[in-house]
Amino acid sequence: MPKVTEEHRNARREQILRATWRCVAREGFHKTTMADVIDESGLSAGAVYGYFRSKDQILTAIADRSVGTVDQVFHDLLADGRAPHPADVLQAVLDRLLDVAGQGDGDLTLIAVQAWGEAVRGGEIHDMIQPRIAGLRDHWVEVARRHQTAGGLGPDADPEQVGRVLLGLIPGFILQRLLLGEVTPDGYAAGVRAMLEA
Amino acid sequence: MPKVTEEHRNARREQILRATWRCVAREGFHKTTMADVIDESGLSAGAVYGYFRSKDQILTAIADRSVGTVDQVFHDLLADGRAPHPADVLQAVLDRLLDVAGQGDGDLTLIAVQAWGEAVRGGEIHDMIQPRIAGLRDHWVEVARRHQTAGGLGPDADPEQVGRVLLGLIPGFILQRLLLGEVTPDGYAAGVRAMLEA
Repeated sequence: MPKVTEEHRNARREQILRATWRCVAREGFHKTTMADVIDESGLSAGAVYGYFRSKDQILTAIADRSVGTVDQVFHDLLADGRAPHPADVLQAVLDRLLDVAGQGDGDLTLIAVQAWGEAVRGGEIHDMIQPRIAGLRDHWVEVARRHQTAGGLGPDADPEQVGRVLLGLIPGFILQRLLLGEVTPDGYAAGVRAMLEA
Repeated sequence: MPKVTEEHRNARREQILRATWRCVAREGFHKTTMADVIDESGLSAGAVYGYFRSKDQILTAIADRSVGTVDQVFHDLLADGRAPHPADVLQAVLDRLLDVAGQGDGDLTLIAVQAWGEAVRGGEIHDMIQPRIAGLRDHWVEVARRHQTAGGLGPDADPEQVGRVLLGLIPGFILQRLLLGEVTPDGYAAGVRAMLEA
């Protein structure tokens, strides 16, 4: 029996994620079946089911990786007690998101919006995504707290509330970009900077 | 033949919208069929199809009405050249949204998130929702412009960019409320006020 290396497993997983990504971009999440994913991936049914039991599990893996990538942006920007400007953090997060979203053969943010529709109805995707979103909110609250300490917010500002507003800007960017096509990370971050420097 | 009054037609339309709302809240948009809607409404198939040709048309009508309600908030607050504080506008919009969303037997914001997933993929819902969202963005840009004229934003701020940020806050509120359950119109508006009064 051949030794299946970690590297080989990762490549296979990636192959399945990308196949799903193409199917969902083309057909939508609900019309995509595991059979479509298997066809598109070029792997056997047994191979695909060896990695993912269901379509929900694949969507969860895609969402998980996207959130993980954004998480890393916060870890980098908040390292060593730094107090980055919230507008700079926003721009870095959006740049990274669009970078990840454009790496496949479709636009991953299209899949993200469909994942939200699934997540709010509960189930496996909800249970996976909920603590991840809470984690992102905590990062934004920390950004607001440090900005306040640096004098960028008044003493009466509640960093918890400001953090929720900053978190709330992300879905609004994704949706607006897909529906109206007129927002960019730069312009959106400039809008936030103008608000914070009023 | 009985004379079908406008009032009667509106009541029937309402009955169908509410039936769909209950089905979608229970089953999700994709699992809901026209047959489910007909069953749930207690009307005949002929009657239902007399008002709506498809599920997409019904979702479009629900979305259309929700956006129309928010539109009215802007018309009221922006009447007579007034310059309301953006945080007050945000709170009024969110209050109205939650008010409308809670009038049925489920939470209409759940359906909104599913409608986004449909709209970004194009089709009838996209074509209906796109100009409506562009209209809301124009209202927010006007709120930002008047706030700038009133001295609430610096002279270098671009009201177009600030307006897009303000528009972007709405989906982020809806999604956060459904996934994390910790945001309120008051708290969210307070966060925006703190940012604008930094």
